[in-house]
Amino acid sequence: MIIVMQSRAAEAQVEGVVHRIEDLGLKAHISRGEFRTIIGAIGDETLLKPEFFAGLAGVETVMPIMKPYKLASRDFHADDTVLEIGPFKAGGPYLSVIAGPCAIESEEQLRASARVVRDAGAVMLRGGAFKPRTSPYSFQGLGEEGLKILQGVGAEVGLPTVTEVLDVREVELVARYADVLQVGARNMQNFRLLTEVGQAGKPVLLKRNPAATTEELLMSAEYVLTEGNLRVMLCERGVRGFDTATRYMLDLAAVPVIQGVCHLPVIVDPSHATGHRELVPPMALAAVAGGAHGVFVEVHPDPEKALSDGPQQLTPDAFRRMMAELAPIAEAVGRELQKPNT
Amino acid sequence: MIIVMQSRAAEAQVEGVVHRIEDLGLKAHISRGEFRTIIGAIGDETLLKPEFFAGLAGVETVMPIMKPYKLASRDFHADDTVLEIGPFKAGGPYLSVIAGPCAIESEEQLRASARVVRDAGAVMLRGGAFKPRTSPYSFQGLGEEGLKILQGVGAEVGLPTVTEVLDVREVELVARYADVLQVGARNMQNFRLLTEVGQAGKPVLLKRNPAATTEELLMSAEYVLTEGNLRVMLCERGVRGFDTATRYMLDLAAVPVIQGVCHLPVIVDPSHATGHRELVPPMALAAVAGGAHGVFVEVHPDPEKALSDGPQQLTPDAFRRMMAELAPIAEAVGRELQKPNT
Amino acid sequence: MIIVMQSRAAEAQVEGVVHRIEDLGLKAHISRGEFRTIIGAIGDETLLKPEFFAGLAGVETVMPIMKPYKLASRDFHADDTVLEIGPFKAGGPYLSVIAGPCAIESEEQLRASARVVRDAGAVMLRGGAFKPRTSPYSFQGLGEEGLKILQGVGAEVGLPTVTEVLDVREVELVARYADVLQVGARNMQNFRLLTEVGQAGKPVLLKRNPAATTEELLMSAEYVLTEGNLRVMLCERGVRGFDTATRYMLDLAAVPVIQGVCHLPVIVDPSHATGHRELVPPMALAAVAGGAHGVFVEVHPDPEKALSDGPQQLTPDAFRRMMAELAPIAEAVGRELQKPNT
Amino acid sequence: MIIVMQSRAAEAQVEGVVHRIEDLGLKAHISRGEFRTIIGAIGDETLLKPEFFAGLAGVETVMPIMKPYKLASRDFHADDTVLEIGPFKAGGPYLSVIAGPCAIESEEQLRASARVVRDAGAVMLRGGAFKPRTSPYSFQGLGEEGLKILQGVGAEVGLPTVTEVLDVREVELVARYADVLQVGARNMQNFRLLTEVGQAGKPVLLKRNPAATTEELLMSAEYVLTEGNLRVMLCERGVRGFDTATRYMLDLAAVPVIQGVCHLPVIVDPSHATGHRELVPPMALAAVAGGAHGVFVEVHPDPEKALSDGPQQLTPDAFRRMMAELAPIAEAVGRELQKPNT
Repeated sequence: MIIVMQSRAAEAQVEGVVHRIEDLGLKAHISRGEFRTIIGAIGDETLLKPEFFAGLAGVETVMPIMKPYKLASRDFHADDTVLEIGPFKAGGPYLSVIAGPCAIESEEQLRASARVVRDAGAVMLRGGAFKPRTSPYSFQGLGEEGLKILQGVGAEVGLPTVTEVLDVREVELVARYADVLQVGARNMQNFRLLTEVGQAGKPVLLKRNPAATTEELLMSAEYVLTEGNLRVMLCERGVRGFDTATRYMLDLAAVPVIQGVCHLPVIVDPSHATGHRELVPPMALAAVAGGAHGVFVEVHPDPEKALSDGPQQLTPDAFRRMMAELAPIAEAVGRELQKPNT
Repeated sequence: MIIVMQSRAAEAQVEGVVHRIEDLGLKAHISRGEFRTIIGAIGDETLLKPEFFAGLAGVETVMPIMKPYKLASRDFHADDTVLEIGPFKAGGPYLSVIAGPCAIESEEQLRASARVVRDAGAVMLRGGAFKPRTSPYSFQGLGEEGLKILQGVGAEVGLPTVTEVLDVREVELVARYADVLQVGARNMQNFRLLTEVGQAGKPVLLKRNPAATTEELLMSAEYVLTEGNLRVMLCERGVRGFDTATRYMLDLAAVPVIQGVCHLPVIVDPSHATGHRELVPPMALAAVAGGAHGVFVEVHPDPEKALSDGPQQLTPDAFRRMMAELAPIAEAVGRELQKPNT
Repeated sequence: MIIVMQSRAAEAQVEGVVHRIEDLGLKAHISRGEFRTIIGAIGDETLLKPEFFAGLAGVETVMPIMKPYKLASRDFHADDTVLEIGPFKAGGPYLSVIAGPCAIESEEQLRASARVVRDAGAVMLRGGAFKPRTSPYSFQGLGEEGLKILQGVGAEVGLPTVTEVLDVREVELVARYADVLQVGARNMQNFRLLTEVGQAGKPVLLKRNPAATTEELLMSAEYVLTEGNLRVMLCERGVRGFDTATRYMLDLAAVPVIQGVCHLPVIVDPSHATGHRELVPPMALAAVAGGAHGVFVEVHPDPEKALSDGPQQLTPDAFRRMMAELAPIAEAVGRELQKPNT
Repeated sequence: MIIVMQSRAAEAQVEGVVHRIEDLGLKAHISRGEFRTIIGAIGDETLLKPEFFAGLAGVETVMPIMKPYKLASRDFHADDTVLEIGPFKAGGPYLSVIAGPCAIESEEQLRASARVVRDAGAVMLRGGAFKPRTSPYSFQGLGEEGLKILQGVGAEVGLPTVTEVLDVREVELVARYADVLQVGARNMQNFRLLTEVGQAGKPVLLKRNPAATTEELLMSAEYVLTEGNLRVMLCERGVRGFDTATRYMLDLAAVPVIQGVCHLPVIVDPSHATGHRELVPPMALAAVAGGAHGVFVEVHPDPEKALSDGPQQLTPDAFRRMMAELAPIAEAVGRELQKPNT
């Protein structure tokens, strides 16, 4: 960590910083420039936080040198982590498509959607049983009944399943039925939930909060990883932007940014990011071209009748067209597109 | 709700929208303009969601006319709701200051802070026992031990207390010790937690998420209100901005924006919003001049030694100076600044 | 335009709105709902502005129905506009790559860069002669000397050229040497400059301002189009975001958003958007997969020695690799990648 | 400047950085930590730019120590700069109110507005003659005719005047009629215009662009200051935010942020920031409480008839009420509210 002193900092203030560094068991390294004195803290920076110094008298700015996360970092694990769950494989050269309806509405609806997505090449089935809704007056999902439908249909079509868990008290319940636990964007910093899913022994799909930096996403992943669960996928699903033409602003550059510093697979969800059906296929293709390890899209057998998020769910036809275009792009960027078992 | 059809929408598409409106038990009102056909849905719009129409063929845009929240709205409750908790009073003409350290570190530390803030005019004591931290490696709070200290010191100095609850499983625990339950910014859309605190029978301080619009904040309040708990305060604490000169961007205009449509008290937290001690007093004064019903600030007896958020906590002296400047501003804008009992 | 009245609007206030509509030569259409009265203005909405009504007593909100732009709209020109400038072709099924150094530093440097980019498949040469720099202490470009070099090298390698014009007084000068006039992001709402380049008789490349919505970009294009110059390309180059991991946040969804409503070609500049060399190729590929009609990248023969924006300029090798990957992606999405004449 | 090397940087890469520093005439100072090597460049950092190093092999990040602006900095001029223009005085303890209509529509309209604002305590008259409009179809102002009206009415009511200059070719014209030259938010990085107004010999009011950081605003001020014109005021007028409840997001914390590092007066414009008349007074009061040296508001004798920005212009009555509340707040924060000559 580097502490930059104010231009008029007194010698005693410099010493105050040095003492604080030494109290923490590190060595201080002072560099007196023409305009500023700069102090480096040499040693294990993970013992430090900027706030240990930012409030000290005479300090102008504090600059961390090391990343605040460890287990998520390529310094800890240099090669890509590959997650394999049945036909699903993500990380390294592997690319997988996760698809299904926004919410599970009935067994018929999920089965219809599951067959469409499996037949077109999806290798994991998604569907919400517990839905986080901005309004208390909106459809909140079928709950455990939905989980049972998901498990049954998943087995029937031969796809592993992913569904969101909203509540620390339901982690065990959801883990009983689903293959992958999804932590939604609104819960990215629900640290208790992260800890619980970290302990549940199932792979985790962690979505980025619309106000979170990529570094904050990695810090949230760290909560899961420190529980000993290294099977974590990260998902970019749009950040809060100012243009109302899309629901959120898809930050596709986050894919190579994260991949540069982190070994975990990175998935992209263009459905929630854009909120408009016609924008989903181009952004799914863009995600693959940009290096994503997976694409996560909503497909409904009849989107006009959907109980939630109708406007962003793809029709079966649109999904099939998207998959047809996606394959050559995957090949062009050296990704092996995974296929369902037949 | 108003549905605007695309300029080339076919007659059958117009009829599709009309049928959907009538299926939902409302009346459709068609207006054919020179360039566009526009359809109004007449009746109880709370039965509708834009997504019921946005995905229909031929629809260009859907415009809700009514607000999506009810109990939070001035249409439901025209006059300001006033919350009174011991010497604390907020809403209507009343203005209260809530202060205390970021985290409860020890009984001595909290007592020292509590005396400073009470003597300078704060009427509610804040202090974190369960701390939501971006990093799993940061201090996470004293837990129940901290709650006991908070209750004891609050009683000793004669101030009601507010503290954050992070976990649905701890709502009852926190409610046993604290007078007001705080839902933090990261949990603003943790809907299960909102429901639980709504049922806990204690007033709630609900902080705005950095990515949330004011309308989304009101929708989250609605989750608490629908549980029958009308004692809710809203708190602006900065949204995610692009200028790294401050930690978040304080959105002070949110105060009159919310007050225009909602009857609940609006509090401002300049400590978390700015992240820098020297910016807290000017923004606290600005909040009062802008019409806030309360100010929520962090004060530490010795900020340089704080275990969390040191750089943004005020020193006792700075807090006293701020309170001295705050009083005449409150008077100038017609707010009655509440005083602790002596 | 639709005017929604407040729930308690008086009859006289409704009449006030009706009179205003009729004064403007349109017809008012009143719809009285259970909770709100809604007034539609029927006729040529281009005569109206929301501000004509938003300030009237009793008005709650004003909703425009028609887009505020005309010539940029697909209502005016349904099919894609195709721009053809020598080997460069953009719009419709055509895809072109524009490349070159950030700034023209010398004839040797530009020639080296131009040969690299032409040989790898670029069909237009870029290079800045007048540089807009945040700091007055930074290199401001070679000026007219740079323009001469650009013209000479362009002719030599057989590529048309594009360069930025900063000043209304230099439009004629720049137009004398360059084939396409670039209006930079900082000048997107320099309306005088837009008018001047509209009159200069040369194709225009208009970059999106980091704070502009896609609709505002189209309104700025409208300034050029109304001068009778229909040869305009739009360029997405990143908006202001909150994550400092990238310089700006590349808004790739803007490509299909704009293409949905506007007939002009849309180009993407991943160099300025990301600010990091290693992020440029994945985002260039993503742009093509997402439907862009062109890619605009910076390539320097020796980026470490560049006088401006070194960290974001590609090396010749990196550019060649990017072009090799780009070709199959273009094919996958049905775009004809243009090639330089040989 | 501090250059942090990647954890696996080779010795030759460290030497590459050292050579670059020495080539630039500075001294390198190497600090080898347990995990990273860090190199400091000692000497006049104004000779450096991060981009000189960011692209070098083995470099992880580059951290500037010194601010990129000089003349705007308190390091150059420690005390507040005070601008005095007739009864107007801003900077240090002085506070002034600037008011008038958005656009000059006629002599009668400006005179009516000028009398209202002067009688209520404004000390500078604003009014637009050249209007930058998002749409080419909107009213663009009266031009020179408007300037003449402004000069005449200003003299008549005894107030100095401020008006926007849009075009480098009109700087001299506007300077002939107005006392202060305004550079609008859209032109904050129109560097040619900044240079021209810097040479015009008149005080300058420079508005912050909605996408600009406070540091970028100071860099733009630097363009004016380097021309020898030190009479510059900065104006916060809202940045681009994601909540459509206000037009822009007023960043009031920018006031103390700028005042901490810069000696120039800081003015706040709540009219353009909020876009809603009812939000203007509370945000004007908040600005004063937060330490602004001036408030800049739009007042129209009959806002419902305004040709531009009607919804945000105050009525005469609302302006008078605002001024009455503003006076005691100014006093509370130790600001001397300037009064017009009588």
